Amino acid sequence: MAPLYAPSLRSRLAPLLLFLQIGFIVIFAFYTEIESHVKVDRTTFSNLYAEFQDVNVMVVLGFGFLCTFLVRYGFSGSGFNLLVAVIATQWGIILNGIESWYYRGKIRIDFKSLVVAEMCAASALIAMGAMLGKTNPVHLIIIALLEVSGFVLNQWLLQTLLKVRLLNSIMLLHIFGAFFGIMLTWNLHRNGSKQRFEKEKFDSKSGLFSMLGTVFLWMFWPSFNSVLVDDHSLGRKLGAVCSTYLALAVSAVTAAAVSVLSNPKGKFNLIHMQSCILAGGVAVGVSMSAVHLPWEAMTIGFIAAVVSTIGFRYLKVHMQLAFQCHDTCAVLSTHGLPGLLGWLAQLFLQIRDSDDHTVAIRFAVFHISALLITIALSLCMGIITGLLLKWNFWRPPQDKKCFDDQAFWEFPHLAVRK
Amino acid sequence: MAPLYAPSLRSRLAPLLLFLQIGFIVIFAFYTEIESHVKVDRTTFSNLYAEFQDVNVMVVLGFGFLCTFLVRYGFSGSGFNLLVAVIATQWGIILNGIESWYYRGKIRIDFKSLVVAEMCAASALIAMGAMLGKTNPVHLIIIALLEVSGFVLNQWLLQTLLKVRLLNSIMLLHIFGAFFGIMLTWNLHRNGSKQRFEKEKFDSKSGLFSMLGTVFLWMFWPSFNSVLVDDHSLGRKLGAVCSTYLALAVSAVTAAAVSVLSNPKGKFNLIHMQSCILAGGVAVGVSMSAVHLPWEAMTIGFIAAVVSTIGFRYLKVHMQLAFQCHDTCAVLSTHGLPGLLGWLAQLFLQIRDSDDHTVAIRFAVFHISALLITIALSLCMGIITGLLLKWNFWRPPQDKKCFDDQAFWEFPHLAVRK
Amino acid sequence: MAPLYAPSLRSRLAPLLLFLQIGFIVIFAFYTEIESHVKVDRTTFSNLYAEFQDVNVMVVLGFGFLCTFLVRYGFSGSGFNLLVAVIATQWGIILNGIESWYYRGKIRIDFKSLVVAEMCAASALIAMGAMLGKTNPVHLIIIALLEVSGFVLNQWLLQTLLKVRLLNSIMLLHIFGAFFGIMLTWNLHRNGSKQRFEKEKFDSKSGLFSMLGTVFLWMFWPSFNSVLVDDHSLGRKLGAVCSTYLALAVSAVTAAAVSVLSNPKGKFNLIHMQSCILAGGVAVGVSMSAVHLPWEAMTIGFIAAVVSTIGFRYLKVHMQLAFQCHDTCAVLSTHGLPGLLGWLAQLFLQIRDSDDHTVAIRFAVFHISALLITIALSLCMGIITGLLLKWNFWRPPQDKKCFDDQAFWEFPHLAVRK
Repeated sequence: MAPLYAPSLRSRLAPLLLFLQIGFIVIFAFYTEIESHVKVDRTTFSNLYAEFQDVNVMVVLGFGFLCTFLVRYGFSGSGFNLLVAVIATQWGIILNGIESWYYRGKIRIDFKSLVVAEMCAASALIAMGAMLGKTNPVHLIIIALLEVSGFVLNQWLLQTLLKVRLLNSIMLLHIFGAFFGIMLTWNLHRNGSKQRFEKEKFDSKSGLFSMLGTVFLWMFWPSFNSVLVDDHSLGRKLGAVCSTYLALAVSAVTAAAVSVLSNPKGKFNLIHMQSCILAGGVAVGVSMSAVHLPWEAMTIGFIAAVVSTIGFRYLKVHMQLAFQCHDTCAVLSTHGLPGLLGWLAQLFLQIRDSDDHTVAIRFAVFHISALLITIALSLCMGIITGLLLKWNFWRPPQDKKCFDDQAFWEFPHLAVRK
Repeated sequence: MAPLYAPSLRSRLAPLLLFLQIGFIVIFAFYTEIESHVKVDRTTFSNLYAEFQDVNVMVVLGFGFLCTFLVRYGFSGSGFNLLVAVIATQWGIILNGIESWYYRGKIRIDFKSLVVAEMCAASALIAMGAMLGKTNPVHLIIIALLEVSGFVLNQWLLQTLLKVRLLNSIMLLHIFGAFFGIMLTWNLHRNGSKQRFEKEKFDSKSGLFSMLGTVFLWMFWPSFNSVLVDDHSLGRKLGAVCSTYLALAVSAVTAAAVSVLSNPKGKFNLIHMQSCILAGGVAVGVSMSAVHLPWEAMTIGFIAAVVSTIGFRYLKVHMQLAFQCHDTCAVLSTHGLPGLLGWLAQLFLQIRDSDDHTVAIRFAVFHISALLITIALSLCMGIITGLLLKWNFWRPPQDKKCFDDQAFWEFPHLAVRK
Repeated sequence: MAPLYAPSLRSRLAPLLLFLQIGFIVIFAFYTEIESHVKVDRTTFSNLYAEFQDVNVMVVLGFGFLCTFLVRYGFSGSGFNLLVAVIATQWGIILNGIESWYYRGKIRIDFKSLVVAEMCAASALIAMGAMLGKTNPVHLIIIALLEVSGFVLNQWLLQTLLKVRLLNSIMLLHIFGAFFGIMLTWNLHRNGSKQRFEKEKFDSKSGLFSMLGTVFLWMFWPSFNSVLVDDHSLGRKLGAVCSTYLALAVSAVTAAAVSVLSNPKGKFNLIHMQSCILAGGVAVGVSMSAVHLPWEAMTIGFIAAVVSTIGFRYLKVHMQLAFQCHDTCAVLSTHGLPGLLGWLAQLFLQIRDSDDHTVAIRFAVFHISALLITIALSLCMGIITGLLLKWNFWRPPQDKKCFDDQAFWEFPHLAVRK
C-alpha cells in the first residue's frame, strides 16, 4: 500500500493522460477526417447539432452533477466525470470507426459518430457510478477504456451475430454498464466498507447540486432515447419523445410515493428519488421500439420506478452484506433493474403484437440471446478489469481517504489556514 | 393538530399519489393516443421539440430552483416543484383534451398539447409560490389539481364567451396564478407568521441556487412568450422573441437601480432582484399581441421592473400586516402586478392603434371583461381551495416546522450523528 | 477615501443605471426597428434562435457562474455579470448599428445583431475577469461601456483598413478583452494586493458553482465558434463544431495532466482546470478559418491547454510580483495566451496552405497588422479607462472590503441576528 498518494498521482496519472492524449491525436491525424461533403441541408444540420448538444449536456453536466451528492467528493464527482467522458468519447469515436476505416481507409467524424461515442461514454459513466469514491483517477481511466472497448465489442457481436439494429443494441448500455460496474465493485471489495464509510453521506447543499444534475438528465432524457430513431418516420420519433416524457413523469410521482411508503417515518429520501425518477426513462429507452401507446410507456415507467425505489432502499444494503458488493450510486437498481424490465417489456409487447407464432418465437430467441451475450460479456469484462485494477501498481486510495476530495485536489484556503 | 408529521405523510400522501398516478394511467389508456400521422416535416418537428424543451426547462428547472432560496427548504423547493409540475402537466393534458375527446373520441398528444399543459402547470407553480414553505406535499397536490382545473375552465370561458385567442388567454396565467395564490394564503393565514418565521431567510449558497433558477427563467423567457405565436407570421415570432429579450434586459437594469434606491444603505437585495428582473418578461408576455416596436417593449419592461421591485420591497410587508396575507415569494409583486400592467399596456396600445372608434370600444369592453372573469374565477377557486385545505384531515405542518426540510426529508447524516 | 460605501452606491450607481437605461430606451425608440420582413423560412428562423440562445446561455450563465468561485463573492460574481452583460449588449446593439443607421436611417434588430452584441458583451466580461472583486458596480459599468466601444472601434478599423471579415475580427475578442483587462488592473494596482487578499479563496461549494459555469461554457463553446460561420457552407460549419469539440476534449485531458504535473504533491487544482479546459475553444475559435483537419484542432487544443495551465500556475504570481498586476481570473493565461496561440496557428496554417508565395506574404502582413492594431487599441483603451477609474469620485472599495458581497448586498438574516 502506498504511504502517500500524491506521488502516485503525479508519476502514474500525468504520464498516462499525456500518453493517451498524444496517442489519440496521432490516431486522429492518420485515420480520421471531418465529413466535408455534408449531404444534409441547413436545417437538418442544425437539428442534428441540437440533438448532439442535448446528449452532450446529459453526459457532461447531467451525469457529472448527479455524482456530486457526496458531501466531500463534489470536485471529484464532477471533475473526474468530465475527464472520463472526454477520454471515453475519443476512444469511442476510434473504436466505432474501425469498420469504416477498414472499408474506406478513413474514420468520418460527424454528429452521428459523436452521438454514438457519447453514448458509449455514458455506459462507462454508469459503470463508474458503482465505484464512485473508492478509486483514484488512474483507475477511472482504465475502467473507461476497458468498458468502452467491451461495450463496442458487444454491439459488434450483437449486430454481426443477431442482426440487432444499432438503436436497440446501443440502448443496452444501461444493462452493460450496470453489470460491469457491479462485477467490478465486487472484485475490488474493501474490508473498510463493512462499516459504513465515514464520509459517504450528503448534506443540504450537495443534495441540491445532485438535484441539478438529475433534473438535467430528467429533462433531456427524451432526446437521449429519440436521437437515434430513424428520421424518416417522424411518427416513431414523436412517439419516442412523448413515451419517454410520460414514463418519466409517471416515474417521478411513483418514486416519490414508494419512497414515502418504504420509510418508517414516512419521509422522502432525496438520493433515492433522484435516481429513481429516471427509471422510467431507462426502461422505456430499452423497450422503445415496441412501445406504441401512451399507457404502455406509463405502465413501464410505473413498474420501473417501483422496482428501482425498492431496489435502492433494500437491495443496496443486501448486496453489500450478502455479496460484499458496495455499489455507491446503486447502479444495479437505477440502471440494471429498469434496463432488464425494459428488455422484458419489449419481449412481451413484441410477442403480443406478432400475428405469426413462428415470428414471435424467432424474435424471443434472438431477444434472449442478445441479453445473455450482453450480460456475459459485461461480467467478463468486469472481472478482467477488476483483476487488472487489483494490481497495487495503480496505488488505490486507503479506506479512510475514500470519498474525500482532499486526496486529489488542492484546497488553497486550507494551505493558508495551516 | 397532528402530534407527528411522518404518519400523516405516509397515510395521506402515498395513497393519494398512487391513486392519482394509477388513475391518470387508466385515463390515458382509454382516452389518449400519440399523434401518429405527423403532418409536419422533419425540421418543423425538431423546432417544435426545441420549443417544448425550452418551456420544459423553465417549468422544471427554472421554477424549481427559483424556490430553493430558503436556507433550510431547498430539497422541498426543488423536489416538490418537480412532483407538482408532473402531476399538473398530466392533469392539464387530460383537461385540455376534453374538447378533443368530445368531438373525436381520443385526446391526441403532441408537442403543442404538452406545451399548453406545461403552461397550465406553470400557473399552478406560481400559485404555489405564495404558499411556499407553509404546506405539506398533500396540500400542494390538491392546490395543483384545483388551480389547473380553474385555469382551464377560465380559458374555456374566455374562448367560448369572448372569443379570446389561446395565445392571449393562456398568458393570463400570471394573473390567475398570482390572485389564486394570494387568496389561498389569506385564507390559510397562520398566527405564527405575525412574528417573522425563524427559518424564512436565505444564505450565500441558497441564494446562488436560486440565482441559477432565475437565470434559466430569464434566458428562456423569450421562448415561453413566443412558443404559441402562429408559425405562419415569422415577423410576429421574431418580434415576440426580440421584444421579450429587450424587456428582460431593461428589467434587469431597472430592478437593480430601484433595489439600490429603495434600500437605506444603498445595497442590492438578491431575492428582490431575482424576482424583479423577470417582471419585463411577464408584462410583455401578457401584452405581446399589441407590442410592435422595441421601445414599447422596453418601456413596458422598465415600468414593470419599477412596480415589481417597489412592490416586493413595501407591498409584501404591508399585505402581511394589513391583510394578514403572507406571500412567501411575493407572487403578487412578481407576477400579479406586472401581469396587470401588461394587460393595461395591451389595452392602451390596441386603442391607440385602432383607426375606428367603435372597434376600439368593442375591444376595450372585451378586454376588460376577460380580466374581470379571470380575477373573479381565480379568487373563487382560491377561496374554495382554501376552505378545503383548512380541513385538519390533511394535517398542516406546525408553525415551527414551516420552511424546514426535516419535516419531510430523510437526512441520513443526522441519523448517524444522533 | 469614502468612510461608508452605501451612500456612494446609492448616489452614484442608481442614477447612472437609470440614466443609461432611459437613454437606451430613447435611442431605441428613435433609431431601431425589429426586422419585420423576415426573409428566412420557418426552420432557419428556429435554427438562428437556437444559436442565439446558446450564445446567450454562455454569456449570462456560463461567464456569470464561472465568476462565483470566490467564497464570499458569489452574489456579486453572478449578479454583476448579468447586469454588465445586459448593459453591454444594449450598448453593443447601438454601436454595431451605427453603420446601418448611417445608410438606412434605422438600426435593424434581428438574431444576428443580438449575437454580435452578445459577443461584444463577452469581450467586456473577459476584461472584467481581471478586475473581479476589486471594483464596485459603478466601475464595472464604466468598464463595460468603454471596453465595448473600444472593441467595436477595433472591429471597424480592421474591417475598413484591412478588410478582415467579421468572423475573424470578432474572434479577437479574447485577445482584446484580456489585454484591456490586464492594462486596467495594472493601472488600478492596490497596495493591499501585495499580501494575499484575505477573502480571495474558494471552498468546496463555491468551487462547484464555478464548475457549473465552466461546464456550460465548455458544452456550448462549439456554438460560440460556429455561430457566425457562413450558412452556405455547411461543411465549414460542421468543421467548426467538430474542431472546437475535439480541441475542447483534448484541452480537458491536457489541462488535468499539466495541473497534476505542475503541483509538487501531484494534486489537481479545480480553478486552474476550470479555466484551462476552455483554452482549446479559445485558440480554435481564433484560428478557425484555417483549421481543416481534426488533428490540427486537437494539436492546437493540446498546446493551448499546456500554455494556459502553466501560465495560470506560474505567470499569474509572476505578473503580480514583477509587474504589480493582480489578475483575479488570470484572463491573460486563459484568454490572452490561447488567443495569441490561435492567431499564430492561423498564420502558420494559412501560409502552409498557400500555393503562391506572394499571397502568403500578403496574408502574413495583414494578419500581423490586425494583431498589432488590436493589441495597441486594447492597451490604449485600458489605460484611458484605468485613468478614468482612478478618480475617487467613483468611491472604490477599500482593500478589506474587496472580494466581499457584504459591501454591496443585503443579508437579511445577518440584520436579524445583530
